[in-house]
Amino acid sequence: MRIDIITVLPELLQSPLNYSILKRAQDKKLVEIVVHNLRDYSLDKHRRVDDYPFGGEAGMVMQIEPVDRAITQLKSERNYDEVIFTTPDGERFDQPMANRLSMAGNLIILCGHYKGIDYRIREHFVTKEVTIGDYVLTGGELAAAIMCDAIVRLIPGAIGDEQSALSDSFQDNLLAPPVYTRPAEYKGWRVPDVLLSGHQRKIDEWKHEQSLERTRRLRPDLLE
Amino acid sequence: MRIDIITVLPELLQSPLNYSILKRAQDKKLVEIVVHNLRDYSLDKHRRVDDYPFGGEAGMVMQIEPVDRAITQLKSERNYDEVIFTTPDGERFDQPMANRLSMAGNLIILCGHYKGIDYRIREHFVTKEVTIGDYVLTGGELAAAIMCDAIVRLIPGAIGDEQSALSDSFQDNLLAPPVYTRPAEYKGWRVPDVLLSGHQRKIDEWKHEQSLERTRRLRPDLLE
Repeated sequence: MRIDIITVLPELLQSPLNYSILKRAQDKKLVEIVVHNLRDYSLDKHRRVDDYPFGGEAGMVMQIEPVDRAITQLKSERNYDEVIFTTPDGERFDQPMANRLSMAGNLIILCGHYKGIDYRIREHFVTKEVTIGDYVLTGGELAAAIMCDAIVRLIPGAIGDEQSALSDSFQDNLLAPPVYTRPAEYKGWRVPDVLLSGHQRKIDEWKHEQSLERTRRLRPDLLE
Repeated sequence: MRIDIITVLPELLQSPLNYSILKRAQDKKLVEIVVHNLRDYSLDKHRRVDDYPFGGEAGMVMQIEPVDRAITQLKSERNYDEVIFTTPDGERFDQPMANRLSMAGNLIILCGHYKGIDYRIREHFVTKEVTIGDYVLTGGELAAAIMCDAIVRLIPGAIGDEQSALSDSFQDNLLAPPVYTRPAEYKGWRVPDVLLSGHQRKIDEWKHEQSLERTRRLRPDLLE
């Protein structure tokens, strides 16, 4: 799998891509993540990629030409499954979408910045508009990092323990049960007795009941 | 405003905190963001902060003692409005929550990692459990970065143009209208005529209609 990220702020992605799961998955050759500075595709002598919006809105708008040049260059080198644009009004990124995208071959993620991007980019170059949640960020870089993390950890071999990923929240539409570790008692707060019982069937039943109860109480929408 | 982030992976937060809005807001003394390495609060000689879960689940669990020591230390130094834990089954982070939290004095954000954190931490130390979306991440660090970005950009003076933040998606429960910038025509794709008309009332009407139409079509839930 290969993910190309197009951004005006490549520095922001340095540490997310160089620590934790994304670094390990790249070292294992499970994924190649390439960050492109959009300014490298500007024809302007000051490497400018934004301009004032038509119609007098506040803020700056990302121009179509550098984005066209960047995407066209990448597409000339390989085929892409999706050209993703991160935007608050896109389709909601969730675990099923992460699962699907983890099976893709090549992805482009275009990070918005400033007030927005020229809408013609969205009409003519973007194939999938995605939001990671109902909040506004300064740019799409952190959203791209979030998507990479959620997607890459699903690639077999990316995390040490695949069983662990399978039992995560959302994979079965249930929230995960509470987890506990040593000490069994801390400041008078005890771990539930059943978890210390050594009786695996009872433990599994308890976990499933906890998952169900927590999902009903906190996220009944997941059970519909 | 001060935000203390407790994490086992402080390196991952380096570039999100040192570029873009979060760096500028810190330079302007609008916010102080302090990252704490949880391992500094471990009493273990190998600075260990995780252990195997009771009951035989796959994955590792963050221990209560180092977290207790970190939070207790911070609370002895100042008062906190919230101790936030980022978890997929928490309350959904959205723009209204970002607005509220942007008015807080001091916040702690505890980043989960591994399979989860000892549930007693959530019962006894955490005051607010928050999710940034229905997907599973390797850790809470990127979620903490996302929250910081969304919150800090709302502090007056953090972004250059406050008018720009006010007209963002979600602030009025409407999606933003399309934006365009030069050139007015690119490869035959033209900017809508009204935006080039210079007629500000018509432009504003068009924008409002576009916002309404896009919200009805893409996110009818926001209009309820």
